[in-house]
Amino acid sequence: SVNPDLASERQTASFSVEKLTALLDGGTEQTRIRRAVVEAIESDPVFSRENQYFQTQNERYEAAVRKAVHLQKKVHDMGWTENGPEYKYIYRALSGDVAFLLHRVFMRSISVLGSDKQIAKWIPLATQHKLIGSYAQTELGHGTYLQGLETTAVFDTATQEFILNTPKISAMKWWPGDMGRSATHTVVFAQLYIHEKCYGIHPFIVQIRSLQDHSLCPGVTAGDIGPKMNFEHIDNGYLLLKNVRIPRENMLSKFCEVRPDGTYVRQGSQKINYFTMTTVRISLISDEVLTPLMKACTIAIRYSVVRRQSKLKPGEQEAKILDYQTQQEKLLPQLAAAYAFHFINDYLQELFNRGYREIQRKNFDRLPELHALSSGFKAVITQHSTAGVEICLRACGGHGYSLLSGLPSLYTKILASCIYEGENTILLLQTARFLIKCFMAVSAGQPVPPSVTYLAAMKPGKCPAKNKLDFLSPDIYTEAYQHVAVRLISSTAVKLQDLIQSGVKKHDAWNQCTVQLVQAAKAHCHYIAVKNFAETVEKLETKAGIQKIMKHLCDLFALHGIFSNTGAFLHDGYTSAAQMDMVTASYLDLLAVIRKDAVPLVDAFDFTDKSLNSALGSYDGQVYQRLYEWAQKSPTNQMSPAYERYLKPLLHNTLSKL
Amino acid sequence: SVNPDLASERQTASFSVEKLTALLDGGTEQTRIRRAVVEAIESDPVFSRENQYFQTQNERYEAAVRKAVHLQKKVHDMGWTENGPEYKYIYRALSGDVAFLLHRVFMRSISVLGSDKQIAKWIPLATQHKLIGSYAQTELGHGTYLQGLETTAVFDTATQEFILNTPKISAMKWWPGDMGRSATHTVVFAQLYIHEKCYGIHPFIVQIRSLQDHSLCPGVTAGDIGPKMNFEHIDNGYLLLKNVRIPRENMLSKFCEVRPDGTYVRQGSQKINYFTMTTVRISLISDEVLTPLMKACTIAIRYSVVRRQSKLKPGEQEAKILDYQTQQEKLLPQLAAAYAFHFINDYLQELFNRGYREIQRKNFDRLPELHALSSGFKAVITQHSTAGVEICLRACGGHGYSLLSGLPSLYTKILASCIYEGENTILLLQTARFLIKCFMAVSAGQPVPPSVTYLAAMKPGKCPAKNKLDFLSPDIYTEAYQHVAVRLISSTAVKLQDLIQSGVKKHDAWNQCTVQLVQAAKAHCHYIAVKNFAETVEKLETKAGIQKIMKHLCDLFALHGIFSNTGAFLHDGYTSAAQMDMVTASYLDLLAVIRKDAVPLVDAFDFTDKSLNSALGSYDGQVYQRLYEWAQKSPTNQMSPAYERYLKPLLHNTLSKL
Repeated sequence: SVNPDLASERQTASFSVEKLTALLDGGTEQTRIRRAVVEAIESDPVFSRENQYFQTQNERYEAAVRKAVHLQKKVHDMGWTENGPEYKYIYRALSGDVAFLLHRVFMRSISVLGSDKQIAKWIPLATQHKLIGSYAQTELGHGTYLQGLETTAVFDTATQEFILNTPKISAMKWWPGDMGRSATHTVVFAQLYIHEKCYGIHPFIVQIRSLQDHSLCPGVTAGDIGPKMNFEHIDNGYLLLKNVRIPRENMLSKFCEVRPDGTYVRQGSQKINYFTMTTVRISLISDEVLTPLMKACTIAIRYSVVRRQSKLKPGEQEAKILDYQTQQEKLLPQLAAAYAFHFINDYLQELFNRGYREIQRKNFDRLPELHALSSGFKAVITQHSTAGVEICLRACGGHGYSLLSGLPSLYTKILASCIYEGENTILLLQTARFLIKCFMAVSAGQPVPPSVTYLAAMKPGKCPAKNKLDFLSPDIYTEAYQHVAVRLISSTAVKLQDLIQSGVKKHDAWNQCTVQLVQAAKAHCHYIAVKNFAETVEKLETKAGIQKIMKHLCDLFALHGIFSNTGAFLHDGYTSAAQMDMVTASYLDLLAVIRKDAVPLVDAFDFTDKSLNSALGSYDGQVYQRLYEWAQKSPTNQMSPAYERYLKPLLHNTLSKL
Repeated sequence: SVNPDLASERQTASFSVEKLTALLDGGTEQTRIRRAVVEAIESDPVFSRENQYFQTQNERYEAAVRKAVHLQKKVHDMGWTENGPEYKYIYRALSGDVAFLLHRVFMRSISVLGSDKQIAKWIPLATQHKLIGSYAQTELGHGTYLQGLETTAVFDTATQEFILNTPKISAMKWWPGDMGRSATHTVVFAQLYIHEKCYGIHPFIVQIRSLQDHSLCPGVTAGDIGPKMNFEHIDNGYLLLKNVRIPRENMLSKFCEVRPDGTYVRQGSQKINYFTMTTVRISLISDEVLTPLMKACTIAIRYSVVRRQSKLKPGEQEAKILDYQTQQEKLLPQLAAAYAFHFINDYLQELFNRGYREIQRKNFDRLPELHALSSGFKAVITQHSTAGVEICLRACGGHGYSLLSGLPSLYTKILASCIYEGENTILLLQTARFLIKCFMAVSAGQPVPPSVTYLAAMKPGKCPAKNKLDFLSPDIYTEAYQHVAVRLISSTAVKLQDLIQSGVKKHDAWNQCTVQLVQAAKAHCHYIAVKNFAETVEKLETKAGIQKIMKHLCDLFALHGIFSNTGAFLHDGYTSAAQMDMVTASYLDLLAVIRKDAVPLVDAFDFTDKSLNSALGSYDGQVYQRLYEWAQKSPTNQMSPAYERYLKPLLHNTLSKL
């Protein structure tokens, strides 16, 4: 039975939840397929996450390996193929709780970096799981800065082998997933040396464990890097190589080859490689960032209509905590952001599909723009979403702090997305570099890519809003965001130029501008996200109330951004103080409007109870019963030796009756 | 041997680290005593935290109980007494990793709420550990709002007993520390009923476990609430009471008594109770909030001078990451905040000592101000410090994400401080209520407490700064903070009045202002923190470079607050855009200045390697070696059954040689 405090929230929905779900999925047929995959996975006990919060790191790893192995069978039994429509839902249905994700990266790196001959040899072996692959790039001493990697691969002409070494401790491979305990093979990135000349970083296929008994190969030291904030199910590993010899054919050689005599030959364009990195950054947004944010919103909002605390009005029943303005102000902007990011993700996907078609036609013109957008949005979305999940956790008070709420593990996992696949600050600076370059080009009257043509449109004007309702006009707020982005980019470009002209060396000048460059890159992405949300809303069908509620969310997303960052809008007087008060008023009004639809808006995300795995967020809202039931299953409720060992001796002088 | 990249940072310190440590401790003698306590604790293997990151929740609990029991002996052997100078350092030296903390709360609640007779009976038993006490207030369905607690205690005149019951699931006691597995007794807060009339919440001593065999007493259901984000060492528990009878004498009766015939007698003033809550909020700041923030700064800053990544200038060696402006902008404001909060903590302690002396003289006049300050600063300091620890964690990239860095556990623990002892938003609204009341009083020409007299000083003026150096003047920035606080408090008071005058009911009007009330309360605390830091710096001796570096930190703390919240200062034109650009310039300049002393500034916190328990933050900076050594000890590097069970069958078709 559904908690009446939750049930009542659903009766007043201003729109069709089912239609919104279909919109998010990209059509009713997609919804049907997704639900079928979820049903198939969740009905299979091997994939259960029931005891997850009680398991040790070792138990989590065992379970993830078991699931990965079972998944092969499941995929086969269900007839799901890699190009079929079901495939993309599997990972979400598993909540990512499965091993061998790096096996796919191993395969992709061979497909992209390997010669046709190498692909023909290794891909079938990997596909049939005759080996388990990993991808060994990051070292103890080097992450983002790939050129600094220290592992060496020296070509030995006599034996036609590469000799791989970890010359010092900071060169040890560190973090690669699936490598600590599972992988038999890995792609090692190392500095290539031929006749004592260094040719830079190249990829090599290295076997690290025996296929007979899984023991480490000669010269290989490997193991697990130990406990992390999350990812207990993954055996992130370390790898130390001592004179490990591999045949010449194991250097992935689509772009670079070492001939038998030691001649180094570079062939083809490596530009496609940058595109791959770009694709990875975009592809992680949906599963690793949006899904956790949407889950956190679902849990926190459902809980906030079931939890009653204190009285809003004297003499009345205690109020649902979502009726407090402060609680709305915590949660509803996160909900709006989840929708905003969903739509910007659609936009990026579409952009990348187009980019990919161009690249297949050997047209690399759009690559810099794609790289800048993927870097900037990866950083902005991961950062914003991580903060959002944390806000959801805190907004649930003590119960949010219990692992049983599901929120702590969502938080500790999404936090990693700010670090992996490019640390966010570094990514934002890459976006900033592109923006500064484009600003210079625009200033010189040269053409620039579509997403930055607005830089040419810098107008001195003022925000034309006259009352608080004007701030519910997308033209008004989009223009304001654009103005701020242009101002921050141009003023930082000017500072940079001034510093250089005053004699500061170029690299020092850049470093002295980086705090502001990061702000400029964020402003650019924020502007595009707002603009895209507004454009998306405009295109929605006006039926079934969906356009209306999406318009509210778009307004909230935009006004929350202004309200939280008023200085950027006030700075040059584009927005006046009186206008800022209008923004605040409209923003606070919107909270009360969206609050009415808050539960239907999270219901539309369509998470099953099993996928939420939360005592606070289930569809029926029976929070307290579930917390109690789950707690009783905790291993901390088994007999503890502490009483016999420590407490009994301490209490030995007790009175039989106090 | 110390990593040369770290050693070089210490050679250029602009001040005496040892003198700064003494300043923080409150004198060289205090430093000596603290170090002696730390030495005594850390040299005792029972208190070791060496394997902490590898332990399960059960193992952590066992260890904490063992430590708690051993601590009794240690304290006795060392001759440390509760009133002695060593006592306050014990908890810090243990990093809080010990059980039975609630035993002390149990004792304090009896001392404060019990009659002389009750104190005489229970305190000796507790002191001699003839029982283990806990404190059962929070319920599944109620935390902050104490009046809403649902547990009942019905007085039975016939048997002269109270009958305690948990009438429904939401009334179950939930969260009390030490209650899940350890406690034999607890203080239960319940609604008192006499002859079917409810007299509100009262405290009762209830035995929950046998002193013979530790089994649960009749009618008692209790256990552990399961896994949490941290506090694995504490058995936070649940408690369900079914017709549990306790003698009439077990109601703590300093303020209220039930006579044998059922007459309810209220006696004395309960005001002292509010003071107790206030004291707890202040006392947690040092150990639970400042220490973790200082540890996180120590770890992240030491790591940032040892980690080299990418090149700042082409052709040079890779740069220390602390040389990047963006890294400085992440870490140095946290360092400045740690100092600012240390000094505001001194200020609050002093204020409370004075308040306590007044209260002993039955003068309760300063209670509202003390309550407002303790609530506001508890919220502001926990919030700011939690964010600071998270920034430190992220600033260490992937290695910060490893539990071995120590940062994840600092974060997951400090996060709880935003929730316990009063949820932060609710506390800020209590401060805001006080501020609005004082603002009204000031407007009516009535006297107000010292910390808010500034509300009368609202001047319309403008910030007088003419160049960026002017913003290094404490008068300039303190005035700016004051102006913002007054503006936010007064404008919200006006909004509130306007709403009420327009016919909105008082409680609705309050709710509609709460987002802005929270901002106003924060601005008030921020102003006081800046002012106090500036005043502290002024009083420091000018020798040994300490005043100079503290002045830099004070400036940074103040300017960071403006830089991060420009809108508040720009809003009414008090600060102009040109002045804001000066703030930015001065702020960024300061980063480069303080960066030079960053390592000495964290060295002054004087944490031992054992207390940091971090592979990244040790005094010698041997980061990579330590990560590798520690990882090898992880239980995830023991044999796993996963190979035999799952991988071998998967790989069964392998080739003997690929």
